[in-house]
Amino acid sequence: MDHIEKPISLEPQALLCDESLFCVANGYIGLRAAFEEGYSGGSNNIPTVRGLYANGFYDIIDMKQAEPLHGLVDRKQTIVNLADVQGMDLWADGQPFSMFTGKIMASKRRLDFVTGTYERQVIWQTDSGCTLEISIGRMASFAHPSIMMIDYRITPRNQEVKLHLRSGHEGDVRNMSDPNDPRLASHSVRNMLVEKVALLPAEETTISCITAKTARSGLSVATAVVHKIYEDKKAELRDAVRISEDENRICDHESTMSDHEATLSAYKDVISDCETTSTGAVHSFTIKVSANTSIRIVKFIAVCDLLRHGTGFAQGAVDELHHAMAGGPERLYAAQTAYLKRFWHHSAVEIKRDDDGAIDTAMRYNQFILLQSAGRDIHANVAAKGLSGEGYEGHYFWDTEMYLQPFFLLTQPEICKNLIAFRYATLDAARNNARALGHKSGALYPWRTINGEECSGYFVSGTAAYHINGAVANAVEQYWLATGDDDFLMDKGLEIVLEIARLWLDVGHLSGGEFHIHGVTGPDEYTCLVDNNYYTNALAQKNLRFAVRAADHLGGEHCRRLGIGTDELTGFAQAAAAMRLPFDRNLEIHAQDDSFLSKPPWTHTAIPPEQHPLLLHYHPLTLYRHQICKQADTVMAYYVCGMEPDDTMARSYAYYERITTHDSSLSRCMFSIVAAMLGDADKAGAYLADTVGLDLNDSHGNTKDGIHTANMGGSYMALVYGLAGLRFRDEGVVLCPRLPEGWQGYSFRFVYRGALAEVKVDRQGSSCRVLEGSANIVMEGSNR
Amino acid sequence: MDHIEKPISLEPQALLCDESLFCVANGYIGLRAAFEEGYSGGSNNIPTVRGLYANGFYDIIDMKQAEPLHGLVDRKQTIVNLADVQGMDLWADGQPFSMFTGKIMASKRRLDFVTGTYERQVIWQTDSGCTLEISIGRMASFAHPSIMMIDYRITPRNQEVKLHLRSGHEGDVRNMSDPNDPRLASHSVRNMLVEKVALLPAEETTISCITAKTARSGLSVATAVVHKIYEDKKAELRDAVRISEDENRICDHESTMSDHEATLSAYKDVISDCETTSTGAVHSFTIKVSANTSIRIVKFIAVCDLLRHGTGFAQGAVDELHHAMAGGPERLYAAQTAYLKRFWHHSAVEIKRDDDGAIDTAMRYNQFILLQSAGRDIHANVAAKGLSGEGYEGHYFWDTEMYLQPFFLLTQPEICKNLIAFRYATLDAARNNARALGHKSGALYPWRTINGEECSGYFVSGTAAYHINGAVANAVEQYWLATGDDDFLMDKGLEIVLEIARLWLDVGHLSGGEFHIHGVTGPDEYTCLVDNNYYTNALAQKNLRFAVRAADHLGGEHCRRLGIGTDELTGFAQAAAAMRLPFDRNLEIHAQDDSFLSKPPWTHTAIPPEQHPLLLHYHPLTLYRHQICKQADTVMAYYVCGMEPDDTMARSYAYYERITTHDSSLSRCMFSIVAAMLGDADKAGAYLADTVGLDLNDSHGNTKDGIHTANMGGSYMALVYGLAGLRFRDEGVVLCPRLPEGWQGYSFRFVYRGALAEVKVDRQGSSCRVLEGSANIVMEGSNR
Repeated sequence: MDHIEKPISLEPQALLCDESLFCVANGYIGLRAAFEEGYSGGSNNIPTVRGLYANGFYDIIDMKQAEPLHGLVDRKQTIVNLADVQGMDLWADGQPFSMFTGKIMASKRRLDFVTGTYERQVIWQTDSGCTLEISIGRMASFAHPSIMMIDYRITPRNQEVKLHLRSGHEGDVRNMSDPNDPRLASHSVRNMLVEKVALLPAEETTISCITAKTARSGLSVATAVVHKIYEDKKAELRDAVRISEDENRICDHESTMSDHEATLSAYKDVISDCETTSTGAVHSFTIKVSANTSIRIVKFIAVCDLLRHGTGFAQGAVDELHHAMAGGPERLYAAQTAYLKRFWHHSAVEIKRDDDGAIDTAMRYNQFILLQSAGRDIHANVAAKGLSGEGYEGHYFWDTEMYLQPFFLLTQPEICKNLIAFRYATLDAARNNARALGHKSGALYPWRTINGEECSGYFVSGTAAYHINGAVANAVEQYWLATGDDDFLMDKGLEIVLEIARLWLDVGHLSGGEFHIHGVTGPDEYTCLVDNNYYTNALAQKNLRFAVRAADHLGGEHCRRLGIGTDELTGFAQAAAAMRLPFDRNLEIHAQDDSFLSKPPWTHTAIPPEQHPLLLHYHPLTLYRHQICKQADTVMAYYVCGMEPDDTMARSYAYYERITTHDSSLSRCMFSIVAAMLGDADKAGAYLADTVGLDLNDSHGNTKDGIHTANMGGSYMALVYGLAGLRFRDEGVVLCPRLPEGWQGYSFRFVYRGALAEVKVDRQGSSCRVLEGSANIVMEGSNR
Repeated sequence: MDHIEKPISLEPQALLCDESLFCVANGYIGLRAAFEEGYSGGSNNIPTVRGLYANGFYDIIDMKQAEPLHGLVDRKQTIVNLADVQGMDLWADGQPFSMFTGKIMASKRRLDFVTGTYERQVIWQTDSGCTLEISIGRMASFAHPSIMMIDYRITPRNQEVKLHLRSGHEGDVRNMSDPNDPRLASHSVRNMLVEKVALLPAEETTISCITAKTARSGLSVATAVVHKIYEDKKAELRDAVRISEDENRICDHESTMSDHEATLSAYKDVISDCETTSTGAVHSFTIKVSANTSIRIVKFIAVCDLLRHGTGFAQGAVDELHHAMAGGPERLYAAQTAYLKRFWHHSAVEIKRDDDGAIDTAMRYNQFILLQSAGRDIHANVAAKGLSGEGYEGHYFWDTEMYLQPFFLLTQPEICKNLIAFRYATLDAARNNARALGHKSGALYPWRTINGEECSGYFVSGTAAYHINGAVANAVEQYWLATGDDDFLMDKGLEIVLEIARLWLDVGHLSGGEFHIHGVTGPDEYTCLVDNNYYTNALAQKNLRFAVRAADHLGGEHCRRLGIGTDELTGFAQAAAAMRLPFDRNLEIHAQDDSFLSKPPWTHTAIPPEQHPLLLHYHPLTLYRHQICKQADTVMAYYVCGMEPDDTMARSYAYYERITTHDSSLSRCMFSIVAAMLGDADKAGAYLADTVGLDLNDSHGNTKDGIHTANMGGSYMALVYGLAGLRFRDEGVVLCPRLPEGWQGYSFRFVYRGALAEVKVDRQGSSCRVLEGSANIVMEGSNR
């Protein structure tokens, strides 16, 4: 299905989770789906995070080290809640609207992947028996990234009602915090300081504009808000009453602006006002509305910041509002639908399976959220939680290169290119990071960052995860293989790849004829500071080889510009050839690292369910000391390095599968892909089914802190790179589709070197059709 | 020499360092040697730490973790500055006395190991030409541990002078802090909250008593202060003028109370007063003193706390003062000298060497400071910095068992016994610590603590240093071997030893026929989280064997009481027999751990001097990744486990010596001992000479934060366990004395099973004479 829809639960944890799930975002800004009116009237202190975020916009906060060893990071960037723009309090004949008081006759939420809108629909009865249909739509415009809308429509059904609406715009906000969860900020700090609240006339209404600057990072942002009111005298019994039927699409906005509607300023009976405080403004409206008349208040919100819009950012936000108001909401809706039409044209996936279609829907939900999450300019990347929450503080990880870029590379290569360009823009910061870690040459990308500087507070499972370098260099390789974009390789890619190769040479050393890399942490964060992590070494080998290849491909001039000579390239090749890839002769499997297999094993099934995830129940030393894995590590190397399946891979897979808890959301998708590589389509399908709905099912219990972008990208990869076996090779795209039991089939589209292709797999076989352009596509049909 | 003495330097860093060096303490309380009048009049903001500490008395402060992983310690105990009792401001004819104003004609400090007193002597001339001899003595009474004295004597030399003295007693104090040094508290917190300031009449003067409680630990302390004034009408031109001659002892207090002296209350011309504030009191005195008359103001200070003195602690402090005043200062001085006479009777050391006697003096200084530092009751142990400063926040480490107990065991076995009893008293806390680390049985002593709970903020080089368990069990073994104290073994020792053996069994496991211990950190903190640290495993093996032996020795009843059966003992024996002790076949040396020798070596001589200690200049990852050692690790195992010298030991010694920076003050003494074991007396002597004066020379640059007790104990060990080769064996004490080039000889006394013996070594040979009692002593004369 092209949307998700569900009845509204008022259970506190569900409310918090739904704030993330139904977030609207456009890669630049994101707004969590709290109720406009809040949760007052419910049980005490229902937690809520009424966040508005801008990608790449951060403040800096202290991160005290318990013991401040030399070189440890003691400050970090954090995504900031910019302002509360979503407050809209409604009174009907004096009674405040709340989902917790009066009577809810029906309610649902819906997020539509075709129109790119979110809507909350409620039929609410006041204590005095007045019934109101309330429909609140939201949109973050893909076409106009500074613009959001809240489209608030009220229709009294059985009597005239006096409505009073107070729409807030508040700059005095804080970030969420939880001192007990290592994945969240542990204390609340005032990051945004309001500098100015301005009221400006606009048509027949008022714009409020709040300018605020960050406490420490030197960034500034303006949020601006304006309202337009429409009335529909002949409102028909529309969407809301159909909630219980649950059949038609509700948010078909293109048709909701009827001829009957007119801006309300024509009517004398609206009393509107705008008051300010030192940190915000409240726009208020009072109007009598007769039965079966819809009143519609559209709140336009604009966000502009210093990073993107320069010193004129405040005026920029006001201008954006004028432009949006002039065009009106329907033009924005139309542009949104058009944008998404193009998106789905290149991205369409369909899964047919003997089930209720949940996986198909979850896959599309994930794709839509990824589109919402990915930065479109050089200041932004993809945060672990997208723009839907503050978990991991808005930081960018290796997730981008290993779990997110593959999706964009195949569907929106321009976005992928921008994500790599972000790494290029932060290459100097990565060089500085390498120097701080004692490396004389090369660059080391930070484990977590917004602006390119390391934000990892616990270097043992942070900075020490040098494999992020492997991910970045591999991303350049994959992008180049998929696009053949030599210009980008020349301009940016080669320099990244060379600096990473230099780092590998600096951190490693030859010993006993093998190239060793000591003291790093692989993907599995339950095993830290090890020697010769198989995954890391395998990636380093791949990076070194690609560095040589890229240098050879581009030739002498570019190498000279980057100060690289044949001696250095020879060194890369020699290190790659001598790379130590631990292998255990007894078990005949690859060892995760030099010492892993000599530790006592710990079968995760022996651990009671309530002690998962282990990281919340065991001291790191206990975890480090056992053969227990948080996530795919060695197994992941098989996929990333494109190894040929063999008995060693099969034995290793079985071995690590038994000791992997999948406590990381980055794990199951990799086990799915490698199961497919090993020919086990059923297992691949089962892992995919298990993980694709992680957020929709809140199966990790922390979607409240934001959705899991890497798992979303990983689920896509499990289908396309796993079941369909897609790989980039010199000869073109290679596919090797498999179909699990219980699946009727699946299809997806992808872009390769400018061409658009569609893969269809069903019980009859598989096909790949080039829809636009031309491309070399090799089908290795193996419908085992 | 039996004292240290030096001219007073007014250089800021020297002042801070001397505050530590000349601290007076008695195992219970310690007072840093700041100037009574402070450093005002000097250059701006001379740093000072006017600390008064009580051993084992702590507050609790938060220790935020940058990333709060499960089980990480987030609060810690800290030693607290109890009050400022040392303030005494003097005005002479209206001019405030300061070492930075007027004219200093002569000055020195002196700490006397025979009288147990510290004295500052100054000849000071006011701007108007009045010359005063000022002598300020201090003592912390060993005989009456709650009592300290400041003995302030002023003698105008050339004219009558009007003196005004304000003596402070202030409860509003804080601890020192330095956010940039990992070895210090990083921020200042108010730990002591004054509850009450009371003034009480006492004889013809006034006692001020401040009761204060800690902010969070629930402890309370009372400090009480009273003054007595004496006058000597016929004061002769005494000590101070002899400063320049530097020949006679100055602090010969037993003779300074002459017949001419009388308490000043007999004189009418003293105006005395005492005022209070909400947090303290000031005692003031005004008197005219004629030329060549000494006025002497003795400030008695008493400290009692809730831990030791129960709820009547405040009255206790007042009672202590009454008692001290009644006896008078001379009785306290006499008791102090008598106490030290007994101490030196059992501890006397003499080193004769072709030098200025600096080593001989430093050795005795160290012994005296150790006596000042060691706790005498069950609440206290020996802090890394004794009672001389706040470095390492007053925490107790493995230093106690490995570096300090050996000295006390040989000279004051009762103190040693108490230090082990402290570990017994905190055995339950150690059990809890083991559970928190995921161990199902056994006890794990905390890496750093005051009250028995772990205070390590960076577990990687803290809690993970399981070898502290090895040190504690080994201490029980050594104590038992040296004393034959079966009662103590029954009551306390066996239980400690068994719980530690159980922990080794729990953390380790059999693999490939060997007993492995994974994920620990050995003594060398530049190499962390390793598998099979040689030192740790060797100690574990020793512990396991001693557990079996102790259980066998004491027999079934005690084993049953502790729930230990033969199966468990068999398990201990098997694990010990199978213990993995890494050995490198190529180098034919013991490997520090499983992976150490495969890392790239880093010769510390290749690192510029200004980059030492490395921990202040390199990221831990850089250190962990190289073959570079902070301190003795494998080498130390040779001594602790009493291994027989052989070629492997010699090769290992040479190998590790080349890569050890000695950035820890615990290192050189161990290299000294093992050099002696290997027959290289010259090297042993050189290491000893290099390290014995570490604090007196401030060679680590941080004596300002407190003296280094472990280095002091280690220096003693280098002489007695190293050069003299003393070991406890079943057959008795074995000695194997060696004499380095350039040494004429050395002698020392020690206690063994109730007997007192004296060893003398010189160019003619070596001898051991039993002075008191009888003991089996075996001389393995090897005066190579």
